[in-house]
Amino acid sequence: MPMKLTILGSSSALPTSERFPSAHVLNAHERLYLIDCGEGTQMQLRKNKIRFGKINHIFISHLHGDHLFGLYGLLSTFSLMGRATPLHLYAPENYHDILFSHLSDFDIHLNYELDFIPLSGKDQIIILDDKYLTVTSFPLEHRVPAFGFLFKEKPYDRNITREAIEQYEIPGVRIPAIKKGEDYITKDGTVIKNEDITIAGKESLSYAYCSDTKYFKRLASFVKGVDLLYHESTFDMSMEELALTTGHSTTSDAAKTAENAGVKALIIGHFSARYRDINPLVEEARTIFPHTFPAIDGHTYDLEEMNKW
Amino acid sequence: MPMKLTILGSSSALPTSERFPSAHVLNAHERLYLIDCGEGTQMQLRKNKIRFGKINHIFISHLHGDHLFGLYGLLSTFSLMGRATPLHLYAPENYHDILFSHLSDFDIHLNYELDFIPLSGKDQIIILDDKYLTVTSFPLEHRVPAFGFLFKEKPYDRNITREAIEQYEIPGVRIPAIKKGEDYITKDGTVIKNEDITIAGKESLSYAYCSDTKYFKRLASFVKGVDLLYHESTFDMSMEELALTTGHSTTSDAAKTAENAGVKALIIGHFSARYRDINPLVEEARTIFPHTFPAIDGHTYDLEEMNKW
Repeated sequence: MPMKLTILGSSSALPTSERFPSAHVLNAHERLYLIDCGEGTQMQLRKNKIRFGKINHIFISHLHGDHLFGLYGLLSTFSLMGRATPLHLYAPENYHDILFSHLSDFDIHLNYELDFIPLSGKDQIIILDDKYLTVTSFPLEHRVPAFGFLFKEKPYDRNITREAIEQYEIPGVRIPAIKKGEDYITKDGTVIKNEDITIAGKESLSYAYCSDTKYFKRLASFVKGVDLLYHESTFDMSMEELALTTGHSTTSDAAKTAENAGVKALIIGHFSARYRDINPLVEEARTIFPHTFPAIDGHTYDLEEMNKW
Repeated sequence: MPMKLTILGSSSALPTSERFPSAHVLNAHERLYLIDCGEGTQMQLRKNKIRFGKINHIFISHLHGDHLFGLYGLLSTFSLMGRATPLHLYAPENYHDILFSHLSDFDIHLNYELDFIPLSGKDQIIILDDKYLTVTSFPLEHRVPAFGFLFKEKPYDRNITREAIEQYEIPGVRIPAIKKGEDYITKDGTVIKNEDITIAGKESLSYAYCSDTKYFKRLASFVKGVDLLYHESTFDMSMEELALTTGHSTTSDAAKTAENAGVKALIIGHFSARYRDINPLVEEARTIFPHTFPAIDGHTYDLEEMNKW
């Protein structure tokens, strides 16, 4: 089943003619998870032919406009499209009152349930646990409270070998439990170890989203070993000072976190409008973490395929 | 000097892949007037290579999101671009508190003066009178208080004929006053009538913006004789009932107002997302008012040229 990331916006606060503000869509098993919702997200969804109805969860990293000024329009559009399914919105806790008062200021009456899940604190917290995914939030370090998100596929079942089924005459009814890791006990009471009759299933994939944040060492522990890390890289290496004062990262910061966390691939984005050509930023990051790629509006990255690149 | 209108968004509340929400830019003598500011306006400005710095006045017709959810991002972008010039914002009076509290919720500190001019009431009011233009607001009839805007070039000076200057030996110092309409008094006290030595200058042009509104008879009197009328036409003729209950207009409503007002050209827009092809709407309007054109995102309409079409 797919685990694919589509970038809808790769700019920082100032959009350019090529780059919209932050928004990512993770397709996990044909369920869509929208991460941040910068201005124009609904137009980018349309342009990329992404089905609005498959989005049931929206994650907002922090309360800066370039990460959520597309939300009001999108919530309203859902309503106009006749949405009836509840929508789950994960956002910093103080956004609750701001959001609902703004919707009411604009006479926006949603015809679906909007379930607000507040984010707060300094710990890793599981905020969603559904059929296919576990989503954990973790703190970032920015000018305002900000949160990263880790999306992790549930473990795949182990595969039972055809040979084992034949050799031990395992009845079909026992197979699901064995796939989950149980040993098999034969009719005469012999215990057949699970590892002798199964092989490991497909490895589950994981994606972590880190925007906006300055560099801090603990971040690597939150995103340890993920298949794909998105990490903001607003600035190039020479602008470390501006990155620090604005609470942002350089290419070097992003690559160091990827390296320390031992991730498999890194995508950098949230580029300052000063960079018309972002290739030099990617080259910089690659000097520290070679498996780095740029976030490009409208591009889709297949987590499984990326590991082969 | 140019009087040109650029459409940045021609959709109604639900944008499509071809149509952004409402926003128009009027270029009057190289000064830019932004009328409504739907989501994505700043991206459309960039795409159409329109210079942000030339915008000093923004007019918001009413407090529905598809007419102003691009404003927060644009105000913030102005600031990030280092704007120092004051910005004049004309909007329904109750937007003042909503706007400033929302900017503060999002930690947006503008480094330029934002001058809020409240709109209210049921009368025509001159809200701006600058070197080249007079701008009048007038009431529309929608579900919430809504205002239309009339942009009228100041009268052009009369042209003094070369023959008159030679015949009456008119000194250069007197010419500006004569161009404004004064008679010329010769050295011997003879009064030469202005109309005998001048010819009319260029005719001043006018543009009126009407969105959103249902049909009402008095509207034609507010936009009487304008060179170009933009009038919303969310629906086709068959949807009169839905137009009425939602406070919108059909093609027929727009064309009737154009006809009654004796305008020179009509642009219809704010099209419902149900119309993929808008040509049938234009054809419908033309059965009542032949000189009708569609609003198309990214198109520029030269008011002077349009009269020759």
